[in-house]
Amino acid sequence: MPMTYNDFKQLGMRLDMSRGKPAPEQLELSRALLDEAGTTGFLSRDGIDCRNYGHLLGLPEARELGAAFLEVPVAQVVAGGNSSLELMHDALAFAMLFGVPGGEPWRKQDDIAVLCPVPGYDRHFAICEALGIRMINVPMNDDGPDMDFVESQVASDASIKAIWCVPLYSNPSGAIYSAEVVRRLAAMPAAAPDFRLLWDDAYRFHHLTDQKHSTLNVLDACAAAGHEDRALIFASLSKVTFGGGAMAFLAASKRNVDWWQQRVSVRTIGPDKLNQLRHVRFLRDRAGLERLMECHRALVEPKFAAIAAAFAEHLGGLEGVTWNAPAGGYFISLYTPPGFAKRTVALAAEAGLVLTPAGAAYPYGRDPDDRHLRIAPTFPTLDEVRLAALGIALSLRRALEEI
Amino acid sequence: MPMTYNDFKQLGMRLDMSRGKPAPEQLELSRALLDEAGTTGFLSRDGIDCRNYGHLLGLPEARELGAAFLEVPVAQVVAGGNSSLELMHDALAFAMLFGVPGGEPWRKQDDIAVLCPVPGYDRHFAICEALGIRMINVPMNDDGPDMDFVESQVASDASIKAIWCVPLYSNPSGAIYSAEVVRRLAAMPAAAPDFRLLWDDAYRFHHLTDQKHSTLNVLDACAAAGHEDRALIFASLSKVTFGGGAMAFLAASKRNVDWWQQRVSVRTIGPDKLNQLRHVRFLRDRAGLERLMECHRALVEPKFAAIAAAFAEHLGGLEGVTWNAPAGGYFISLYTPPGFAKRTVALAAEAGLVLTPAGAAYPYGRDPDDRHLRIAPTFPTLDEVRLAALGIALSLRRALEEI
Repeated sequence: MPMTYNDFKQLGMRLDMSRGKPAPEQLELSRALLDEAGTTGFLSRDGIDCRNYGHLLGLPEARELGAAFLEVPVAQVVAGGNSSLELMHDALAFAMLFGVPGGEPWRKQDDIAVLCPVPGYDRHFAICEALGIRMINVPMNDDGPDMDFVESQVASDASIKAIWCVPLYSNPSGAIYSAEVVRRLAAMPAAAPDFRLLWDDAYRFHHLTDQKHSTLNVLDACAAAGHEDRALIFASLSKVTFGGGAMAFLAASKRNVDWWQQRVSVRTIGPDKLNQLRHVRFLRDRAGLERLMECHRALVEPKFAAIAAAFAEHLGGLEGVTWNAPAGGYFISLYTPPGFAKRTVALAAEAGLVLTPAGAAYPYGRDPDDRHLRIAPTFPTLDEVRLAALGIALSLRRALEEI
Repeated sequence: MPMTYNDFKQLGMRLDMSRGKPAPEQLELSRALLDEAGTTGFLSRDGIDCRNYGHLLGLPEARELGAAFLEVPVAQVVAGGNSSLELMHDALAFAMLFGVPGGEPWRKQDDIAVLCPVPGYDRHFAICEALGIRMINVPMNDDGPDMDFVESQVASDASIKAIWCVPLYSNPSGAIYSAEVVRRLAAMPAAAPDFRLLWDDAYRFHHLTDQKHSTLNVLDACAAAGHEDRALIFASLSKVTFGGGAMAFLAASKRNVDWWQQRVSVRTIGPDKLNQLRHVRFLRDRAGLERLMECHRALVEPKFAAIAAAFAEHLGGLEGVTWNAPAGGYFISLYTPPGFAKRTVALAAEAGLVLTPAGAAYPYGRDPDDRHLRIAPTFPTLDEVRLAALGIALSLRRALEEI
């Protein structure tokens, strides 16, 4: 007899699947980063004492590593602290307070809006909400945002200052921006002269298949279209080495980097160069990073596969129920028939399974159709993931039976 | 024949005395923080995996360490990244954008002002200047700011939202706030309901004499006066362990800490807990910190003494020339007769000696009397400091001779 929701509830499971955190085994992959920390010393290649103050834009070799990862010139990369979210927050806070190159401080305008392809990353939306920036939902396709919609909005409305983009293995839809979409984003006319692409390249190396997808170099595309200052690229090593103790990068045009330098020179004397040095010595180069990411894939891919298998077994053929099979990244999106996402999350919670709140992937936490669930399979063990996938499926089935 | 300015210039010296940086020997005092980094591991006392995301307000034992250092309750301490300047910047940026508890966003007011005891810390002033906050100079005495002036301003002008305070071994005057000054700052009526003391406790443990001075607990004083939310305390270990790789603290009322948590939750998922763990294991407790600071003193005090000796020898008895003998901190203030500070810095530069720009210790870089020089003796070697002090003295003498 197949397991029912009530059977599952009886298991008394206690599991948190709400956030995209690396599992302990993934963190172990970078064990040498800790073990060798005592022998890394403090002197950079160029003789910089990494213990002392200074080097506002990051240790030179850390910037070089970022440049190699992001395929941009070294002078256009900033190596920062442990969080790219901080860089994104500060970029928007600086925009509000001081403006970005080519524009006035955003706070001087009554109405500021940002385009938000949905479903998207809840922390992007939280920054906008905190800053009082109006968010406009944009339909998302497998190859990126609906560009006809984006172009018409951006061309006609000067209050629209930016668009959030996770170009590769988009959070949480898994979308991969096509070259055509990147070119159109780079080239489209914007009513706001200081329009920006907020390019969160969070999953650039987080492949889940043999095909290592990539997206068009957005700085090049913008420069080619005569919009050199349009893109601000954000990336981090948080899901490469340590979630809480890695290094983040900002990449942009020279003019944007100068602007950034001016703004952060007031805020800090420099980032933690010792941690940057440890990362440079540990990862070495792009090949080193890619080898490490293969090891991540070996741990993460079975978890994604387990979810897919459980959903196929328990949700296959149910009308209006779909899910994606991402080729990379950290999330699976499960779509219920309209009106069933919240109830599914509630039923899962009653069975001891904490999921990301329904609607979290939408601005203001409001999924207009109440049908999207974000599944984060990385942190629990493979056995737990199998069980959790079953629990999610049974919770959804139960929700559908309640009508 | 005593050395002249021209003789000194012939030496072809190249020395940067412009910033208050720890010397390499001081950084060596915390060598174990690096050497033992490989054995510290990643598990906190409570089993927290410091490698992963989370713990927005800092690792519990890092907050406890901060609480012991600052003598405030643990729940009222935030342990952050490598820079207290960042915390100060963000506190003011958040105040502009969102307001502090008890008030509206500062940006909604046409005019925002902050009181600046002078001479003061140039980076405090740079934050205000960047944010468009008007700065009002406040005369500084040996026991803190001129409180009659402060009280009259704060009571009558609602645009005055805060005052910068470095309560112990004030940067750069060496002032030590008396208990009476702290009590008056805590108790004074303020026209602005959201008035704040920006309490930069940068030199709390940086004694240069046997007498370990301390200042009144400002959170207690504020609470006793019914102004529980008035003080925001900032501190860091940058001049205890590593200038660029230490840990910073914010301490305030529970209400202010809740506000901080709300604001930073949008900005980051948490600080680098691995570095916090390393610091906790290395410093252990307040006694550990104080032992380390004794070692700093042994290295730093002779440099301060060398400056004092050189000034006494070469500047003693010159009319209008004075300097202070700080009991702690990182700076010596040298006062020239009015109108001679800039010229002295220029002459020193011609002789290869880079000093902090004259006027730097004043808002907008403008010393109204052009008479203050900030001397930072810590970074160069003792021999270099001796030579530099001679160079400064000879440059000032030459400037005075040029009339």
